[in-house]
Amino acid sequence: MTGLAKPCNLITFLSDFGLSGGYAAACEATIAALAPHVRVLHLSHEIEPGDIRWGSMVLARVAQLGPSCIHLAVVDPGVGTDRHPLIAVSGRGDLLVGPDNGLLVPAANALEGLKEAWVLDPDQVRAFAKLPGGRISPTFHARDIFAPAAALLATGTGLSDLAHPLDVSRLVRPLEPAVETLGEGFAAEVVEVDPFGNVGLAALFDEGLFPSPSVRVEIEGGGLPEWDARLVRTFGQLPSGELGVYRDSWGHVALALNGASAAELLSVTRGMMVRVVARGV
Amino acid sequence: MTGLAKPCNLITFLSDFGLSGGYAAACEATIAALAPHVRVLHLSHEIEPGDIRWGSMVLARVAQLGPSCIHLAVVDPGVGTDRHPLIAVSGRGDLLVGPDNGLLVPAANALEGLKEAWVLDPDQVRAFAKLPGGRISPTFHARDIFAPAAALLATGTGLSDLAHPLDVSRLVRPLEPAVETLGEGFAAEVVEVDPFGNVGLAALFDEGLFPSPSVRVEIEGGGLPEWDARLVRTFGQLPSGELGVYRDSWGHVALALNGASAAELLSVTRGMMVRVVARGV
Amino acid sequence: MTGLAKPCNLITFLSDFGLSGGYAAACEATIAALAPHVRVLHLSHEIEPGDIRWGSMVLARVAQLGPSCIHLAVVDPGVGTDRHPLIAVSGRGDLLVGPDNGLLVPAANALEGLKEAWVLDPDQVRAFAKLPGGRISPTFHARDIFAPAAALLATGTGLSDLAHPLDVSRLVRPLEPAVETLGEGFAAEVVEVDPFGNVGLAALFDEGLFPSPSVRVEIEGGGLPEWDARLVRTFGQLPSGELGVYRDSWGHVALALNGASAAELLSVTRGMMVRVVARGV
Repeated sequence: MTGLAKPCNLITFLSDFGLSGGYAAACEATIAALAPHVRVLHLSHEIEPGDIRWGSMVLARVAQLGPSCIHLAVVDPGVGTDRHPLIAVSGRGDLLVGPDNGLLVPAANALEGLKEAWVLDPDQVRAFAKLPGGRISPTFHARDIFAPAAALLATGTGLSDLAHPLDVSRLVRPLEPAVETLGEGFAAEVVEVDPFGNVGLAALFDEGLFPSPSVRVEIEGGGLPEWDARLVRTFGQLPSGELGVYRDSWGHVALALNGASAAELLSVTRGMMVRVVARGV
Repeated sequence: MTGLAKPCNLITFLSDFGLSGGYAAACEATIAALAPHVRVLHLSHEIEPGDIRWGSMVLARVAQLGPSCIHLAVVDPGVGTDRHPLIAVSGRGDLLVGPDNGLLVPAANALEGLKEAWVLDPDQVRAFAKLPGGRISPTFHARDIFAPAAALLATGTGLSDLAHPLDVSRLVRPLEPAVETLGEGFAAEVVEVDPFGNVGLAALFDEGLFPSPSVRVEIEGGGLPEWDARLVRTFGQLPSGELGVYRDSWGHVALALNGASAAELLSVTRGMMVRVVARGV
Repeated sequence: MTGLAKPCNLITFLSDFGLSGGYAAACEATIAALAPHVRVLHLSHEIEPGDIRWGSMVLARVAQLGPSCIHLAVVDPGVGTDRHPLIAVSGRGDLLVGPDNGLLVPAANALEGLKEAWVLDPDQVRAFAKLPGGRISPTFHARDIFAPAAALLATGTGLSDLAHPLDVSRLVRPLEPAVETLGEGFAAEVVEVDPFGNVGLAALFDEGLFPSPSVRVEIEGGGLPEWDARLVRTFGQLPSGELGVYRDSWGHVALALNGASAAELLSVTRGMMVRVVARGV
């Protein structure tokens, strides 16, 4: 691939910069200067600082809902070290721009597969963007390399003008979240606590996991009592205070209360393990 | 009405999804895929989870400031139950898309009146959007029904293609906030604590309410001492530490300090009742 | 200058309104009604309430990264008092719209200098915008004066139609953050705690400040032990738990940990003074 098949006027943007200090806006302003026709669709800037796995999951989930376009994603605790600045090309024709630390790969996989990888040459990016060469901050590549690169790609600059190819097998992959099959059920990592306090697990939902609608939930290492839960389609079916297990909107097993936070009730956070076991079938 | 009088390139969007997990972005990406020419104006995604009344108030306040267009609003604790997915048509020609739980009615009223109501047919929405029919998540209608419907309406799809009419009298209305006239003043529900800690009351401001600029404020059920307050035009007129009563920018009676949070001083939150009484005229 | 040299379809927008209550959206909706072709680039709405100095710094930093355009900025604790509503014209041709309280001057200076100042006439703004004249809220000039003014300027309305000139020497300037040279180093005010907990100081970075890579950091008035720190290019170079001093992406001296919050470790917040002293050279 030498660049975008057709011109692109949309860049999605995900980061862990927060919204208060103007860091995401600094990148959007940079894009506005280089590619005035481009609209930026903000995916999230409230990824927990440095949380590459969660950033990669949000990116993969949301990017596939939009049109094929350019995705700028920066959760980059290793900024300024020797990790590669990257363009990943998806099978669907999306260009993903960000650090080579695992952030981009799950999204590329979700967008019809990771097809190509390119390593950005910061000097070339700045030459094409007509930015002064010496001004790359070692702590803000999003503004100084990634956003200009995304803007240039959106205006039709070729991949080979800005980057050189890298074998896709050499890209860093994020650690897969843990799922374990047990005799009578499964254990799975908590991958999400959503804005309502619903608890998303790494396990994909499958009817076969639930031979009975009555389920036992245990938090690993919690020393907590086990919880009774019931299989439901949506929170609204639950009586107040009863824990529900359901298929969430991303196809995963999740836990919820009706109008209250299951994460608070269970005292769970991302990364903890939860056991879900069928009750006497 | 069969659809928009003229093409529309603006969708406003309000929800209680927060900004961290990509849920609002998932809806915006869905819109971008179906209606690339549309710009999304985000009203707020930080409505407190499930707070339909507050969401309906923000929507009604802000929607009337913008042009006649499409308004997507989702505060939907009953998602996936039998509440209707709705399009409300305003007298001004706006189309409001969201759940039938009271969220849309005050905004329609503020936009020259609630004129028509239509119940969305999810299957029709997905057929017109060319989305696979079976994939409607019972917990994320915003992404799977409401956002596609808003995008289709923006591209000119007719109301009757996506929905069937419902008598407007059958729509769910939100509970009106409480206002009570007292012998010497009034009691009113706290309807807002703004970003500065100013306390907005349900009572509409009227000069006649304040025969004297000196006022007594009491928090109902608080067991707290009463507060002296003074009628002012703006916070900047208040000496430090003095409580002010003023007409807020939405025409309501409100309480403020200068450079500090009145809500914190008074320990009030939304839903509490406040008594405002004229002092010896 | 009589107005914009060329039509403008971008307005940047900074405020201390937060994102929950729809206040920033009320301004954006007002702009959408008056200037439908304009895109709003949100810089930050999470400036701490009333913090003019921090608002002015974010505005100055980010505005210069984007194209020459209109900048709407409202951190306005004196709203409704006699402070001027302002348009500042920069040497680069940007128009900055907001209150005359120091917020706009550093940005104008950063945009090739403060060239002209104009005082907005609210009645003229509302007449040109065809808004009812009596409806200016004394507590929400952003919605009722500044946003309409910005929108009108974007559609080509002349400065002299909306405002009258003011001598630039009469504009209010913000207090400069404190920097002090010491015998063996310097003391500087904390001007920023970024989303990662990195601590930005008022002192501009200069190699000459650091004769040795080994540095001592003290928090003034803290009664805290002093900290050892090391000069680095980026956080990623630091072993866990070691404090680093680096040139941040805005050219200032800053303090960081690798993957943790330096602000938390040092218990510092904006406005505190930090001493940085070279260790035995």
